[in-house]
Amino acid sequence: MTVYDILSKKRDGKKITDEEIKYMITGICDGSIADYQASAFLMACFIQGLDEEETVSLTKAMAYSGDTIDLSAFSHTADKHSTGGVGDKTTFIAAPAAAACGCTVAKMSGRGLGHTGGTIDKMESVPGTRTSLDNSEFFANVKKHGIALAGQTGNLVPADKKLYALRDVTATVNSLPLIASSIMSKKLAAGAQTIVLDVKTGSGAFMKTFEDSKALAEMMTKIGNMAGRNTRAVISNMDEPLGRYIGNSLEVIEAVEVLKGNVKGALYDISVCLAANMVSLSFGTEYGDSVKIIEKAISSGKAYEKFAELIASQGGDISYLDNTDKLRRSPVIKVVTANRDGYIFSMDCEKVGMSACELGAGRKKKEDNIDFGAGIVLCAKVGDKVHKGDEIAYLYSSEENKAIEGEKIFGSAVRISDIAPEKKDIILDII
Amino acid sequence: MTVYDILSKKRDGKKITDEEIKYMITGICDGSIADYQASAFLMACFIQGLDEEETVSLTKAMAYSGDTIDLSAFSHTADKHSTGGVGDKTTFIAAPAAAACGCTVAKMSGRGLGHTGGTIDKMESVPGTRTSLDNSEFFANVKKHGIALAGQTGNLVPADKKLYALRDVTATVNSLPLIASSIMSKKLAAGAQTIVLDVKTGSGAFMKTFEDSKALAEMMTKIGNMAGRNTRAVISNMDEPLGRYIGNSLEVIEAVEVLKGNVKGALYDISVCLAANMVSLSFGTEYGDSVKIIEKAISSGKAYEKFAELIASQGGDISYLDNTDKLRRSPVIKVVTANRDGYIFSMDCEKVGMSACELGAGRKKKEDNIDFGAGIVLCAKVGDKVHKGDEIAYLYSSEENKAIEGEKIFGSAVRISDIAPEKKDIILDII
Repeated sequence: MTVYDILSKKRDGKKITDEEIKYMITGICDGSIADYQASAFLMACFIQGLDEEETVSLTKAMAYSGDTIDLSAFSHTADKHSTGGVGDKTTFIAAPAAAACGCTVAKMSGRGLGHTGGTIDKMESVPGTRTSLDNSEFFANVKKHGIALAGQTGNLVPADKKLYALRDVTATVNSLPLIASSIMSKKLAAGAQTIVLDVKTGSGAFMKTFEDSKALAEMMTKIGNMAGRNTRAVISNMDEPLGRYIGNSLEVIEAVEVLKGNVKGALYDISVCLAANMVSLSFGTEYGDSVKIIEKAISSGKAYEKFAELIASQGGDISYLDNTDKLRRSPVIKVVTANRDGYIFSMDCEKVGMSACELGAGRKKKEDNIDFGAGIVLCAKVGDKVHKGDEIAYLYSSEENKAIEGEKIFGSAVRISDIAPEKKDIILDII
Repeated sequence: MTVYDILSKKRDGKKITDEEIKYMITGICDGSIADYQASAFLMACFIQGLDEEETVSLTKAMAYSGDTIDLSAFSHTADKHSTGGVGDKTTFIAAPAAAACGCTVAKMSGRGLGHTGGTIDKMESVPGTRTSLDNSEFFANVKKHGIALAGQTGNLVPADKKLYALRDVTATVNSLPLIASSIMSKKLAAGAQTIVLDVKTGSGAFMKTFEDSKALAEMMTKIGNMAGRNTRAVISNMDEPLGRYIGNSLEVIEAVEVLKGNVKGALYDISVCLAANMVSLSFGTEYGDSVKIIEKAISSGKAYEKFAELIASQGGDISYLDNTDKLRRSPVIKVVTANRDGYIFSMDCEKVGMSACELGAGRKKKEDNIDFGAGIVLCAKVGDKVHKGDEIAYLYSSEENKAIEGEKIFGSAVRISDIAPEKKDIILDII
């Protein structure tokens, strides 16, 4: 087995074996295979494609390229993953709701970069909350509370870090099997038996069309199931921000309102859907029944209690949840109003995310600090009828110049039209 | 213009522009484009292909990536190039023959490695001959004698060195446009107005089939002509060694015999063909007439005189040409005889070349020294009828153990059969 032979096979569109894929990934990680060989391999995989078996082999080889999280001591372990969007705070709702219904949610999440926020950052906006847990505390919390939510520790999936860095500079990012294996390798390494994927589609998502999102969802569920995990994917609309609050403490506020049963709508619907799928796959209950179980967990207050328990277990001050008015909103406020009569025809997600980032809610570079109270509250959503002068959004920032810059970007994101846009469901498909 | 965009286009099978190709080659040479990006580019080019225009752009960008030889002060400049074979000493015949007929032959050649020999090494087997000429001596000789033959100086075609090294380790060698551009970039940089290519085909050649050789020949002539050079390609048979002598001084001996008009056959035919094409393209004479001109140059002794003039101009002792018995033959001699009655059915070129290398005629590694007198003289050629015990070859070496090893390899190269093999012409096509 040589790198040259493996490259030749994939170059010629032939199928490569599980052993050959393992050989490549091992060599790429230990440095015995050079970057220029890895990038030639990625380009060959991109152009010639990988079939299901090859994609599963690649995903597994990557998943086991470094540390993995062993959750075998727990039952009904369930994880959720979103492909990323703007205003996506579903983890704060779905994870405690599922945990309140018996799932074990031992979840590691990331920080935000660019126009998308990160769960770990949002969580830290509740004063006192620690997200860096060592292994023993993480597992102790999982055991005691059935839920823990922490930043990534250990050297998980180094192969993905290495390959992603190369893909990023060699135009080999947008390949379905490479995207699917990248996401799923991290999920396999994270150890849960049930994996529920929230595949976003639309202007604010990585996948812009429903067809691409569906293909990704199908490939990821196949990988998960072929790797022995119960896997399901929800395809959800990301043509506009999810919910009305964008920013760190702002998103916690909205999540708490949903958990308390005060707010319904798209955010509630998709969160219930994700949690219901976690329960359904973990316990083998029908999906319809699982939805009822989750809705009851929310209406009864158990889901909110579980969230408060999670925050408290990691040092957070839950008085900020009981009274979300205490959560920080940055002091410089800009009110965006409609410049004409009409319908909110579209709201470019990426621009809204960039506006929030500019206001201080995100990081442009990894080193940047976050202003937890910065962000956007939307008064109008796509499809709403507005009159000239009506409030569309409140922008929060700590600095006037950031507020002005954020306002500019936000302004370019919103289109008002005479025609009402077609209304899209939040949940487009479950695979 | 970014590397990412260019990679994306070629990845998707789109045509890339002359400017984009120049940008890539410039960046690869100056190091601003990383090796892993260059190798991803090569893999994309390999799989998606390059059309004629792209190949010409690539060839030109490579040709002008470093120093070039300016022959504009000379008229009727003509170069020849062989894709490489065993026993190929045509340069020693065709170059002086063409020069004797008015062509200006300012030629740079290489050294041997592995199973193929190098013109420069062979030339140095004539005592006194210098092949390292500085630019002023090289051009002075060209001016005075109409011919010079030296080792490469300056930094010619650095892009090819860089790309070839990467292709070698990323399974991207065997791509027609990449092979053609690699060869032709060096020919363009070498400066001659007329380029005659000897594309070898068969077991001993880089291209094993006639179809592949023809495709390469067609692509190279197109590149040459599109780049403004008069270019023609001869496809010649390399199923068995060319001529009967393999080794450095041994090949000079055979070339001299052909130049003196003492030996006819395949080597004479292909050499005349190459020289005639050089004359035909340089002066616009009909090919048939050009063949007659070259044949007359040989039969009149003018071609031999030009070769002696060339050797003398570079310090060589031409008494070794006048009496080739003076040229070294190594002292340890093995006589290979037929082990059965039959026909010489095949003679594996690569193995014959490796045998000669083992005997001391070649280099296994770049640093190895050459034994100028080592090599092989074939008494029988493919198609000859032999009886058991008949002499097939004389092997020359300076060391007994090398002779034994060389004999083993040579033995495995020859196949004797009851059936006579199909006889192939030496010249298969002229394109």
